[in-house]
Parts: sequence; C-alpha cells; structure tokens
Amino acid sequence: METDQAPRPITPEECVVTRTLTFVGSRWTPLVIWHLLDGVKRYGELRQALPGISPKTLADRLQALEERGLVTRTVHPEKPPRVEYALTPRGFALGRILDDVARWGEEWEDAD
Amino acid sequence: METDQAPRPITPEECVVTRTLTFVGSRWTPLVIWHLLDGVKRYGELRQALPGISPKTLADRLQALEERGLVTRTVHPEKPPRVEYALTPRGFALGRILDDVARWGEEWEDAD
Repeated sequence: METDQAPRPITPEECVVTRTLTFVGSRWTPLVIWHLLDGVKRYGELRQALPGISPKTLADRLQALEERGLVTRTVHPEKPPRVEYALTPRGFALGRILDDVARWGEEWEDAD
Repeated sequence: METDQAPRPITPEECVVTRTLTFVGSRWTPLVIWHLLDGVKRYGELRQALPGISPKTLADRLQALEERGLVTRTVHPEKPPRVEYALTPRGFALGRILDDVARWGEEWEDAD
C-alpha cells in the first residue's frame, strides 16, 4: 500500500490487503489467533475457548493457519499423544495487527 | 483484545475484531480506503481508480463508510455540483492499520 505517489488502479484480486482480510476475516479465524496470542494451546483448550465452534471448523481453521505458516502443530509422543498449537513469528505479527484492529474497533465503536 | 490474563471465551458476534474485519474486508472497501488515504477524491476519480467496480457498488461502499464515520461527503454548490469524499480521523486510523496489513501481506507472501 505504497502511498507516496498516487496509488495505481488495481482490482480486489490484485490487492494484498483484500486477500489477507478475506482469509483472516473468515469466521472464527481472528478468535483462534487471539487465543493463541495468549500462548501454546491444545485442541481441547481451543474448543473450550471458542463456544459454539464445531470440531470440523476448528480443525479446518487450524489447518488453514498452519498451511499459511501462521501456526505450528506439535505432536508430543505420549499416550495418548498430546497435540499443541502455537503461533509462528508470522502469526504473532498478524496477531499484533488484529490487536490494533481491536483497539480501533473498541475506540470507535464506543464513540457511536 | 486484552491479553494480560487468559482471554475469556467469546463468540464471533461478540468479537470486535470479527465485526470490524467483516465490514472492512468486504469486496472493494479496502481499496476505497486505500485510495482515500492518498487524499480527497471525487466520485469519478474513485471509479477510475477502481477498475471493474460498478457505480452502485461504489456508491454503496461510500455510503457504508460514511454511515460508520470513516468518510465525509462534501457537496460543493457549483454547476454541476462537485462532490468530494475524504477520510475522517477514524478512517485514517483504520487506513494506517490496512497499511500494516499490506506490509504484513507483502512481507510474508514473498516468503512463500
């Protein structure tokens, strides 16, 4: 979003912000990232922290985050195996932006 | 998104980030904000800067932004009247966050 000369005309498909927001804005994704900002979480902990999310949706969101390098999935070879999810540096960088969005939303929603 | 104690369970509807991203992530909205970051624009200038947008969609996006206090619409009583759109402080604050999203997207998309 270089703004020192007039921005050139682009379509939503060419817009990195639109592409990013389309992914990050998908239902539950911001909340999954938000809870992982708090630290490593097991699948069960995330399910408890996300009232109403289905097991499949949570698994899909975690897989999508993992595929984009935002989350790591670590399987500890215990009986039963312990599976933990954590944000990567890329994920934390996005989490901080979502924090800014939260502050923006809280500041301006109160003003209404 | 207070993160100094464990975040409490909330649903997407209760999540200010989800609400904000749902609105801001709507097709064309990030691009309209991006072009207005560059300064005051007339309707025609925005249409040229947004290849493929329909007149109705642009009018809808501008109205939605105006209703949320992100954009002002000024009619200059000339013949024909000149209508200009500009970001409010609230809109600029959101625009800066979208700039951060752009940098995040550009940095990490290249890494793939």
